[in-house]
Amino acid sequence: MVGGGQLARMTHQAAIALGQSLRVLAQAPDDGAALVAADVQYGDHTDLAALRTFAKGCDVVTFDHEHVPTEHIRALAAEGVKLFPPADALLHAQDKRVMRERLGELGAPNPAWRPVADPADLVAFGDAQGWPVVLKAARGGYDGRGVWPVDDAAQAAELAATLLAGGTRLIVEERVALRRELAVQVARSPFGQVAAYPVVETVQVGGICVEVLAPAPGLPEELAVAAQQLAIDLATALGVVGLLAVELFETPAGLVVNELAMRPHNSGHWTIEGARTSQFEQHLRAVLDYPMGDTSLAAPVVVMANVLGGQPGGISIDERLHHLFAAEPGAKVHLYGKQVRPGRKIGHVTVLGDDLTDVRARAARAAHWLTEGTPA
Amino acid sequence: MVGGGQLARMTHQAAIALGQSLRVLAQAPDDGAALVAADVQYGDHTDLAALRTFAKGCDVVTFDHEHVPTEHIRALAAEGVKLFPPADALLHAQDKRVMRERLGELGAPNPAWRPVADPADLVAFGDAQGWPVVLKAARGGYDGRGVWPVDDAAQAAELAATLLAGGTRLIVEERVALRRELAVQVARSPFGQVAAYPVVETVQVGGICVEVLAPAPGLPEELAVAAQQLAIDLATALGVVGLLAVELFETPAGLVVNELAMRPHNSGHWTIEGARTSQFEQHLRAVLDYPMGDTSLAAPVVVMANVLGGQPGGISIDERLHHLFAAEPGAKVHLYGKQVRPGRKIGHVTVLGDDLTDVRARAARAAHWLTEGTPA
Repeated sequence: MVGGGQLARMTHQAAIALGQSLRVLAQAPDDGAALVAADVQYGDHTDLAALRTFAKGCDVVTFDHEHVPTEHIRALAAEGVKLFPPADALLHAQDKRVMRERLGELGAPNPAWRPVADPADLVAFGDAQGWPVVLKAARGGYDGRGVWPVDDAAQAAELAATLLAGGTRLIVEERVALRRELAVQVARSPFGQVAAYPVVETVQVGGICVEVLAPAPGLPEELAVAAQQLAIDLATALGVVGLLAVELFETPAGLVVNELAMRPHNSGHWTIEGARTSQFEQHLRAVLDYPMGDTSLAAPVVVMANVLGGQPGGISIDERLHHLFAAEPGAKVHLYGKQVRPGRKIGHVTVLGDDLTDVRARAARAAHWLTEGTPA
Repeated sequence: MVGGGQLARMTHQAAIALGQSLRVLAQAPDDGAALVAADVQYGDHTDLAALRTFAKGCDVVTFDHEHVPTEHIRALAAEGVKLFPPADALLHAQDKRVMRERLGELGAPNPAWRPVADPADLVAFGDAQGWPVVLKAARGGYDGRGVWPVDDAAQAAELAATLLAGGTRLIVEERVALRRELAVQVARSPFGQVAAYPVVETVQVGGICVEVLAPAPGLPEELAVAAQQLAIDLATALGVVGLLAVELFETPAGLVVNELAMRPHNSGHWTIEGARTSQFEQHLRAVLDYPMGDTSLAAPVVVMANVLGGQPGGISIDERLHHLFAAEPGAKVHLYGKQVRPGRKIGHVTVLGDDLTDVRARAARAAHWLTEGTPA
């Protein structure tokens, strides 16, 4: 797996059960996966030579992020390296413009959008669709970065000029009237088998996912099935191998695709305990061309809460764990071995149960202990 | 963790979630845990110098087997190393004579037994209790080794003479009229908190555990509670820190203690998916003095089947996994990274569900695919 973050860390846990040991291409010894994996190489994921050395002897190469240059993936594939997802699929998770164009061709539900090659494009779009609109970098954004809400034509012209001058490729999207955000994950094998997880609700604060509710509360069955079918169709049409996460806006007019990710995804961390097959095992099964695992829920209600780094000071992480475990013996904790920085994702907690209000409160309390070191 | 086998391998998986990385003292690079852990040292667990080097910088030292000499544990503890379980507790899992004596003092249910210092002791015991009897090495036995059924006085005299001449310390026990074997696990922290898992049935073939049924089918509630209470009382009386597995015989006269283990145990592998807290996480929580995790069942019925190495030849383990995953998408597989040898434990599978007959058949089919490479 190229990338040594928490996704590789948790994929290594799943690999162990399958009798494997994940080889990780990390950047530094304190990367989350480098701290725990036996087979770690160091190098930059934008360095073709490092990628080539890394790939030697791997059965298959996969990714913990979208930042490996497409041309490197193509070059390695041409040399006979097996990489999943393939470059032609991954491009749709790397480049929002490519994604929007392809979704349009496939008839998948896009918001109104257009490429922005000139500030005038943005102003014209906003004037036509109504302000505010959402300006996005085509590449490189995550966790709210690379996304700019734009309120009016004056702000639009200045911001777009600055970004375009800096070489940022841009698209603009309408600001959809969203009720809430949903996500659906599927895994697809080279053989073509696709397995879908239940649709979840993702709760974002400041562009960062803080909470995932599985299954999405009160989602009508026909919408859930439509979302799963959409993800299955996209995985198949794009030739995804491995996981595909489809982030969705639920709007009064129906579902709209927000983003795609082709790797284990924060919206799927709940599956470690909450589904019969975790997303990490499923991703490995998919890229190894094994048959897919059972995606059913392990409890009626599953809530995952991210643990963000809090302000410096206060009691140690170790003491926080003590308090959390005493307060919530059933909370499942996953810490990523990262240095704490305010707002940084340093772990997550998952709680299973029968009652959404109760389970959600328990997950929030558990995450609060780890973030703040105080009772909620 | 001293010892690099599958117990350390699975403990490492649990340590990752807690934000830790397990340091392992392994014997060889192909030990199950050495294949997957980041922090591996090599050395013999009977070498005090190797143990001393290993313990430097560890928060706490614990064990994946019972074979570390008691005097070494005492020596390290005297030097200020924190080791759990402590030597005085672990001795009862290392030495069956010490265990039987202490259980007798505590009023715990022993079979009839006595030490055998001379062949005549064995003959006298058999003549008094009735043949056959079971001769056991006080130290070093596992998976059926170090246990000899003895049918009559003639065989007894010859076998005991041979073993005693070889320096083996011996005890003899009556052959109990067992209905089945049960096991109960508890974890105890230095603070003194104890948490008990549900009582399970263990199915043995040739002295090797092949199947664990959780909870033990049809076990009367009062017997289950009595078994849990017995394990809690023993953990407390012996000063165990970490896991204690109490292996029990269910007899017409009630429960009888067979053996003790103070580490993650084969009878608890079902807890990885089948309980809210796995035995591996629970052991870490206990030795780190964290509050204990929820031990409740994750499904009404959980069955664990061991995967033993089959005869050489046939399809590869990788192909076997393909067939198993296609046949049983819900089976959870744990492979230990070991070379296959006939009869060697190379992994296990766990199946969760509602109906014992169905779940048991599915687990057996899954294990059969991995052992034999053919449909059951």
